[in-house]
Amino acid sequence: MTRMSYRVGFIQNRPDFGDVESNRARVAAMLEELEADLFVLPELFTTGYQFRTADEARQMAEPIPGTTAEFLTALAKRKNAFIVAGLAELEGGTVYNSSVITGPGGLIGRYRKIHLFDTEKNIFQPGGEPPPVFQLGAARVGVMICFDWRFPETARSLALNGAEVIAHPSNLVLPHCPQSMITRCLENRVFAVTADRVGTENRVEDETLHFIGQSQVVDPDGNVLVRASETDEEARVVEIDLEKARRKSINPVNDLFTDRRPDLYSTG
Amino acid sequence: MTRMSYRVGFIQNRPDFGDVESNRARVAAMLEELEADLFVLPELFTTGYQFRTADEARQMAEPIPGTTAEFLTALAKRKNAFIVAGLAELEGGTVYNSSVITGPGGLIGRYRKIHLFDTEKNIFQPGGEPPPVFQLGAARVGVMICFDWRFPETARSLALNGAEVIAHPSNLVLPHCPQSMITRCLENRVFAVTADRVGTENRVEDETLHFIGQSQVVDPDGNVLVRASETDEEARVVEIDLEKARRKSINPVNDLFTDRRPDLYSTG
Repeated sequence: MTRMSYRVGFIQNRPDFGDVESNRARVAAMLEELEADLFVLPELFTTGYQFRTADEARQMAEPIPGTTAEFLTALAKRKNAFIVAGLAELEGGTVYNSSVITGPGGLIGRYRKIHLFDTEKNIFQPGGEPPPVFQLGAARVGVMICFDWRFPETARSLALNGAEVIAHPSNLVLPHCPQSMITRCLENRVFAVTADRVGTENRVEDETLHFIGQSQVVDPDGNVLVRASETDEEARVVEIDLEKARRKSINPVNDLFTDRRPDLYSTG
Repeated sequence: MTRMSYRVGFIQNRPDFGDVESNRARVAAMLEELEADLFVLPELFTTGYQFRTADEARQMAEPIPGTTAEFLTALAKRKNAFIVAGLAELEGGTVYNSSVITGPGGLIGRYRKIHLFDTEKNIFQPGGEPPPVFQLGAARVGVMICFDWRFPETARSLALNGAEVIAHPSNLVLPHCPQSMITRCLENRVFAVTADRVGTENRVEDETLHFIGQSQVVDPDGNVLVRASETDEEARVVEIDLEKARRKSINPVNDLFTDRRPDLYSTG
């Protein structure tokens, strides 16, 4: 079997709420020494997470294309890499919790989070389109955001649509996701790159948020190839073999996709 | 919130291959001192796992109703409990890897494993009906068998059809299931009772099988309420609160079922 080498990286940052330029610059600095085919940045990496109101989010949100998308495209050109990164997106008067997908050739696409978590429902409009899959160099890369992990249909849909790697910008506050992403990879035979953040936000009374870090890369056999700390900024790159995600077989007779029994599943 | 108490138990056995009467008697002895509303026994608990040929399995398989089903119903009456247990089922000339569901009032139903693992494909016919859900006393109980765990659609289908508890007879040889069942419970807010076996079988040359034990009960918050050892026979009962599985909300605004976006999922 031929290896199909691809390098994936994540940035685990600690943004200062609202300090967009500084947060962008910090990520660029963290990337400086690294080389990869694909970099994944956290959810809402420019602004921070805890908007007080929908109006506040609207004031800080940006169109795609827009300033941050252009910043990321310039960075992608300089690094000769693809980038998937989360930001608050403004379209019309509506704000989405989105990811932008960009590369050396320019802006590629966008995904608007379809499963909003907790107070995000007061801030963002949920996306109305399926999580997308893009050809990013050698890899087919699916995109989902943070809480999307909790719904097995998200990663399953990406894998059924050909994703070999799941790019997963996140701002995790609950403890379960890093471990559950192992299951997502095992059940779909995909790689997953979860880019989380660290630090604390307490801009809303009685709602102190601790972000759990643990950004990671998991392979289709459920191995955690790298996992970051719970507390520190960290940037990591790991080389993966895409061939592992192209074969859905786990032994000579079980193929996890052809073994599915859609005629017997309830999906309603 | 009213508690809705229900006691679930598992038997983790070490069957001697082919010694059906002794294997049955051993399970009855292990149950002797325990009280529960529902007992889950392992996959193929009467025969052991490693049939050499389909013919051998056919000779040891039983109809449902049949001797083992009657044995289990008598046991259910004596214990005043429901029992879900795996056995090789014969119907016509066809052999299925099945679970029988029985209770104090008699035989209740049957489930034929729909996702066969590895060499099971040489031995058994896959089931042609969806995994079922039964009202067993206070609880709605869904049934799946071993490798069914690897396909998120199985537990999802059971939960969407109302299962509060998943009864999961197993003969596990791969390492991932106990951890992944935590994800199954988190994503569906159900309890899961996995009844596995321990020991080794080496009836087929170059195919020594080590069964990993670790039978467990997991709750809808992903807590492992009890997990058995990797090596020893063990019978355990734990009290659960069914109300936890009836509410699919994880905070005041996120309900894991109403938050689903079936219009955006690929299921094909």
